[in-house]
Amino acid sequence: MAPLVRRVFAWPCLNAAQRCLLGLGLASLKEGHRLVNFNPVMWWLAVPIVASVAAMFFALYLSRWVLGNDTGSPAMRKVSDAIFTGAQAFLRRQYQTIAILAIVTAIILGVLLAVLTNIAHTSTDPAWVVGVRTGLAFLFGAVCSGTAGLIGMQVAVRANIRTASAAKRGLGAALRVSLWGGAVSGFLVISLSLLGVTIVYLAVGGLTNPMAAPAAIVGFGFGASFVALFAQLGGGIYTKAADVGADLVGKVEAGIPEDDPRNPAVIADLVGDNVGDCAGRGADIFESTAAENIGAMILGTSVAITIAGSAGASHANPSWVIFPLVVVGVGIICSMFGLLAVRTASLTATGGQNPSDVAMGRLNVGYYTTAALSAIGVFGVSYLLLHMESSYWWVFGLAGLIGIANSIAFVLITQYYTSGTYRPVRQIAEASKTGAGTNIIAGLAIGFENTAAPVVAICIALGLSYYLGTLTGLGSNGIISVGGIYATAVATMGMLMSAGYVLAMDTFGPITDNAGGIVEMSNAPESVRDITDALDGVGNTTKALTKGYGIGTAALAAFLLFSAYLETVARGNGVGKLNPAAFNVDLANPPIFIAGLLGAMLIFLFSSFAIRAVGVAAQAMIQEVRRQFRANPKILEGTAEPDYATCVDISTSSALRQMIVPGALIIISPILVGIVLGPEAAAGFLIVATIAGILMALVMNNGGGAWDNAKKVIEAGFLKDDQGNVLGKKSAAHDAAVVGDTVGDPFKDTAGPSLHVVIKLLATITLVLAPLFIALHP
Amino acid sequence: MAPLVRRVFAWPCLNAAQRCLLGLGLASLKEGHRLVNFNPVMWWLAVPIVASVAAMFFALYLSRWVLGNDTGSPAMRKVSDAIFTGAQAFLRRQYQTIAILAIVTAIILGVLLAVLTNIAHTSTDPAWVVGVRTGLAFLFGAVCSGTAGLIGMQVAVRANIRTASAAKRGLGAALRVSLWGGAVSGFLVISLSLLGVTIVYLAVGGLTNPMAAPAAIVGFGFGASFVALFAQLGGGIYTKAADVGADLVGKVEAGIPEDDPRNPAVIADLVGDNVGDCAGRGADIFESTAAENIGAMILGTSVAITIAGSAGASHANPSWVIFPLVVVGVGIICSMFGLLAVRTASLTATGGQNPSDVAMGRLNVGYYTTAALSAIGVFGVSYLLLHMESSYWWVFGLAGLIGIANSIAFVLITQYYTSGTYRPVRQIAEASKTGAGTNIIAGLAIGFENTAAPVVAICIALGLSYYLGTLTGLGSNGIISVGGIYATAVATMGMLMSAGYVLAMDTFGPITDNAGGIVEMSNAPESVRDITDALDGVGNTTKALTKGYGIGTAALAAFLLFSAYLETVARGNGVGKLNPAAFNVDLANPPIFIAGLLGAMLIFLFSSFAIRAVGVAAQAMIQEVRRQFRANPKILEGTAEPDYATCVDISTSSALRQMIVPGALIIISPILVGIVLGPEAAAGFLIVATIAGILMALVMNNGGGAWDNAKKVIEAGFLKDDQGNVLGKKSAAHDAAVVGDTVGDPFKDTAGPSLHVVIKLLATITLVLAPLFIALHP
Repeated sequence: MAPLVRRVFAWPCLNAAQRCLLGLGLASLKEGHRLVNFNPVMWWLAVPIVASVAAMFFALYLSRWVLGNDTGSPAMRKVSDAIFTGAQAFLRRQYQTIAILAIVTAIILGVLLAVLTNIAHTSTDPAWVVGVRTGLAFLFGAVCSGTAGLIGMQVAVRANIRTASAAKRGLGAALRVSLWGGAVSGFLVISLSLLGVTIVYLAVGGLTNPMAAPAAIVGFGFGASFVALFAQLGGGIYTKAADVGADLVGKVEAGIPEDDPRNPAVIADLVGDNVGDCAGRGADIFESTAAENIGAMILGTSVAITIAGSAGASHANPSWVIFPLVVVGVGIICSMFGLLAVRTASLTATGGQNPSDVAMGRLNVGYYTTAALSAIGVFGVSYLLLHMESSYWWVFGLAGLIGIANSIAFVLITQYYTSGTYRPVRQIAEASKTGAGTNIIAGLAIGFENTAAPVVAICIALGLSYYLGTLTGLGSNGIISVGGIYATAVATMGMLMSAGYVLAMDTFGPITDNAGGIVEMSNAPESVRDITDALDGVGNTTKALTKGYGIGTAALAAFLLFSAYLETVARGNGVGKLNPAAFNVDLANPPIFIAGLLGAMLIFLFSSFAIRAVGVAAQAMIQEVRRQFRANPKILEGTAEPDYATCVDISTSSALRQMIVPGALIIISPILVGIVLGPEAAAGFLIVATIAGILMALVMNNGGGAWDNAKKVIEAGFLKDDQGNVLGKKSAAHDAAVVGDTVGDPFKDTAGPSLHVVIKLLATITLVLAPLFIALHP
Repeated sequence: MAPLVRRVFAWPCLNAAQRCLLGLGLASLKEGHRLVNFNPVMWWLAVPIVASVAAMFFALYLSRWVLGNDTGSPAMRKVSDAIFTGAQAFLRRQYQTIAILAIVTAIILGVLLAVLTNIAHTSTDPAWVVGVRTGLAFLFGAVCSGTAGLIGMQVAVRANIRTASAAKRGLGAALRVSLWGGAVSGFLVISLSLLGVTIVYLAVGGLTNPMAAPAAIVGFGFGASFVALFAQLGGGIYTKAADVGADLVGKVEAGIPEDDPRNPAVIADLVGDNVGDCAGRGADIFESTAAENIGAMILGTSVAITIAGSAGASHANPSWVIFPLVVVGVGIICSMFGLLAVRTASLTATGGQNPSDVAMGRLNVGYYTTAALSAIGVFGVSYLLLHMESSYWWVFGLAGLIGIANSIAFVLITQYYTSGTYRPVRQIAEASKTGAGTNIIAGLAIGFENTAAPVVAICIALGLSYYLGTLTGLGSNGIISVGGIYATAVATMGMLMSAGYVLAMDTFGPITDNAGGIVEMSNAPESVRDITDALDGVGNTTKALTKGYGIGTAALAAFLLFSAYLETVARGNGVGKLNPAAFNVDLANPPIFIAGLLGAMLIFLFSSFAIRAVGVAAQAMIQEVRRQFRANPKILEGTAEPDYATCVDISTSSALRQMIVPGALIIISPILVGIVLGPEAAAGFLIVATIAGILMALVMNNGGGAWDNAKKVIEAGFLKDDQGNVLGKKSAAHDAAVVGDTVGDPFKDTAGPSLHVVIKLLATITLVLAPLFIALHP
């Protein structure tokens, strides 16, 4: 089938298209290559390009539709404008800081690699080419990642008021505006990531030398991770400093409800939802797809070379290398159909149905549609691209299915641990009866407990796909099966196919949260509030789910990346310096054990910085809010407007100041370990840090989510004392639950999501600097 | 010098002594061996035997002196009797449960190993001998460990009232009674551990076959770990359920002070100090020394065989095997001198000195005396035993010094993180001003942060001693240097030399804590309270320090044990089945990565169970205390006596019920991993679990200690608001700090110390079952 399609449609326009694609292939042009090595299978690269561009137009269409909605009453616009201004101001300052850091890093990186390549001859390319190429790829990755986060948020911050206004027309209208607003961000992020990797692949000469290109594009992944870390960490500190500050004085001390306009920190809180949840998570998932693509392409190179070697062929088949790009491209298309499958027209809650449940049901339809289409898609692509290469092509289809199943498992597990319907959250609510102390103990116990099920799910996904992959008999490096590792890569692709849709659901969260805030602050009627409250509840669920999805994909992507790192190191970065079988990460070797211990410790230390940053900033916020309440009693009476701007400033400056040290720590540590202890120790550092990172992120994300919802369970009146009296808002149990929620905030929105980025960042840094470590420890 | 001593003193009585020692050498007798292989170096075994017996007589002397002190007023005796009865009742029930579990485990273990040896021929001994030997060694280890905990506590629970009474005579008298009371436990534990290992070594034929014996005695270590886990976990749940329950209702709700007789949970709290801190920690350190000895002896075997192999000698020299026993024996003697160096006669706080600081200064004299003598001792033993074997004997002396320096580093780091004088605790106290939420966030941040310095200390100790050891040129298994690993073992011995003294300081803690409670509850005069309060403060410090010491030694002992495991597996348990170079724990191999991920997860899951158990039991306790206060208002007025017994019962039954599942989880998991995924995966599981365990234990121990002392800083009046007003007891900041202390309680006294035991238990189980894993995955 595939060769037929190619014969009929492709050949007539080959020459024109070749020139066109070569326009992107800068390196190939430079060296004046002719297309002697061009393999027709490269035409499949059209899939990711077409899918990305289609997704961008789709996002454009969605955003035009969202912006075409009305912007509500002047009171709403006033609130919305304040949020908009605060968010823009923060992002401008944040990205200025990040830009400076990124440029400095790019220059150091480029010079370092150039000098090193010159000394150690670790590449067949000229030294300066290696340096400039990596530096530029880094910057390009940084720019793409930043752009993805920024543009998505521009739409989200405009969709909030339109959702608030649409809520007047009903649940369905509000759901559509907020979901489509979120989808703009989702599709832009995924398509930029895919297109970015594809462009870099072409630019470094992928068309003419498909095997060497993947190792040259790791700089792109590093750049993306770099921006993602600071975006997520800075945004996370911002949002939670405001949230914790607002809650502790507002709810607990002054006894005013959430999002009350009398609270001076409320605007900072609403701004935080956008800069933290929205821009941050966008950068996170951008990085996951980019990292997954790069890692899988490197492993694909390994498979192709192994097959060519055992068959005695002079050229390896690039199918394995471009397979990941094609699968993710198909995933984007599936996600688009998934989004369109969410019907909002006739959405109303009838006959005692909980409107949150009804809306969540509609979102689930979209998710399962995406998953089902992805399952078909990954099987199809496996057949079309791989059946000529291996009669076991279906193994990779199955591996893709395992990945999709894993993503569903993560969603269900997260739901169990963070939804008010099940034991974990109920247990925390129950423990609140005996005070804040027992609430915290119960929450931490749930946080630690909840690592078990996701870890088992990851282990099954990895173990099963690896085992299936070993059946393909594609060879091994002595211990590790090449086919097995590639199958784990395909499982990761399967999990990431639905990223576009999942990210839409995620950004939907802060939009509805903001819409609720706008409705509350503009004193809109009760019926409108009910609708935004229902959507806010759904948004909390989807935010928790995407965090679960985020850590699942991060774990798999990190495994992929360090497999790729080992591959790179074992092959001596393409020039065959080391013997693969001799290179191994033997944890019983003291230097490697020490590196592993340090790796795990780094995760704990980073978490400490992240949550302390929130604690310190929140204390400043609390002092300021208390000061305003003391200085002007009219604020609490509602007759004077509080000074929102000072609170926004406190969040902004705290976030920017406190993101630097932990960020630098993450970047410098693996470099030091690799330089001092060598490439194997760097691998041990990376792997144990990844394990610790997965576990801590699970504790932080789901522990925090469970605390949050335990509070909501009490607020909804589900907690009763021994005599059957409801212990609701303003009860001692509720106060205890608010303390728990406060502790959970920096867990789930600062440290947890930042750890997703950290584990991928560690891997990309190590991968980029592999030649350095090898040169220093020959 | 050494040969001279031997010639002059030893030879004349050789025959008599040989027969005497052979009486212990059951296996040798059975096989009717003559002393053909007897090497005169074995006379050095007299050192651990003499040192152990001397320490036992020393403990007897101390305990007679302590018990000879007067038992105070009838009011004091009443309180003390209640504590005594509660403690006895709990321990009887707890050890009954543990005994049943241990017997069942011993039978399963024996049968399993016998059947397996029969099928797989993994030993040169008959199958039933292997089974019975391991089962009996397990039971012997269990009995020794249990005895050590029980006897020590019998004295401690009698020393408390004598300390309370001695406090009437002054600080010096009270310090002496409590320290000597603690020392009884300390010396019994260490001498039983050393004597136990030595006896088992002789019983399994160490005299005639010194190389095969170490592998046969791992059952002893497993038995000791087994009892230690349940003792520490059950005791930890007991003590903290009572403590948290008493504090939350007593201090926060009813506003009565700590240890107030009106609080129904107060007796349970005081009982808990004994069964948790005292019996629990005793079993923990017992296990560390036993595990260290066994691990070091196995590695010593490896060194001896390597040397003999390269020299072409037919018999290996057992010096390396018995070296650990000798070093620990010398350490016991040093600890005795250290204890005697603590002068208490003229102890008074003069001229504004803080009495706590004065008393702590005296204890420090003893500690540094022990450390200095140990440094001389380890160098001396290295020379005497090893200088004939290697001209690099001094390397092992240096390694011992590194271990001693490491133990001092751990003490100082722990002090920094848990003392009210330094930044960490001050920061938590400061955060209490803005409420419980920020207090918890700050405490968790400190807990995570404090992993950094101890991990770096461990890494330096391991890395440096390993590096020094590689200089000895004793050979390697291809990757790992045999001399290097042995040097890390010697560093561990160095750290454990002061165990006797450290344990005395530790048990001193619960004794003074109890003495304070007795003084408070018997309404003794203010001046007596001041003295017990001062000692209680010192006790809190020493308890924190020994926990730091405990995790440091556990980390090193665990590293030793898994090195020994790898050695055992690589040599195919003595019959040379596997090639050492082919066996490695390559974390990049998916099954091993999966095992590592599961290992880290197990630590989190276990922590969850441990702290949840306390939370659940504390909730029951709180409900009961509230019920008593409601049912009889006279209790709070102080005119009616509360029902202490019910609270004691709640703690007892909760602790026994809830220690089973987490305990079983720890024992079953490594067995499953080894059976399903093989010996290499079991090693990966073990190593990553150890890393995670070290980190979590540090978070739990020092985080909890910091919270505790932040509360104490506030109570002592060191926290001030912006206007300079003191925020002391009953302030909102104090309430917040009490919540933090409550959260820290299960951290530092239940989960944290249990994790010390867990990481060693995982190693001993894996070591015992290594033949099984090898047989199933040949």
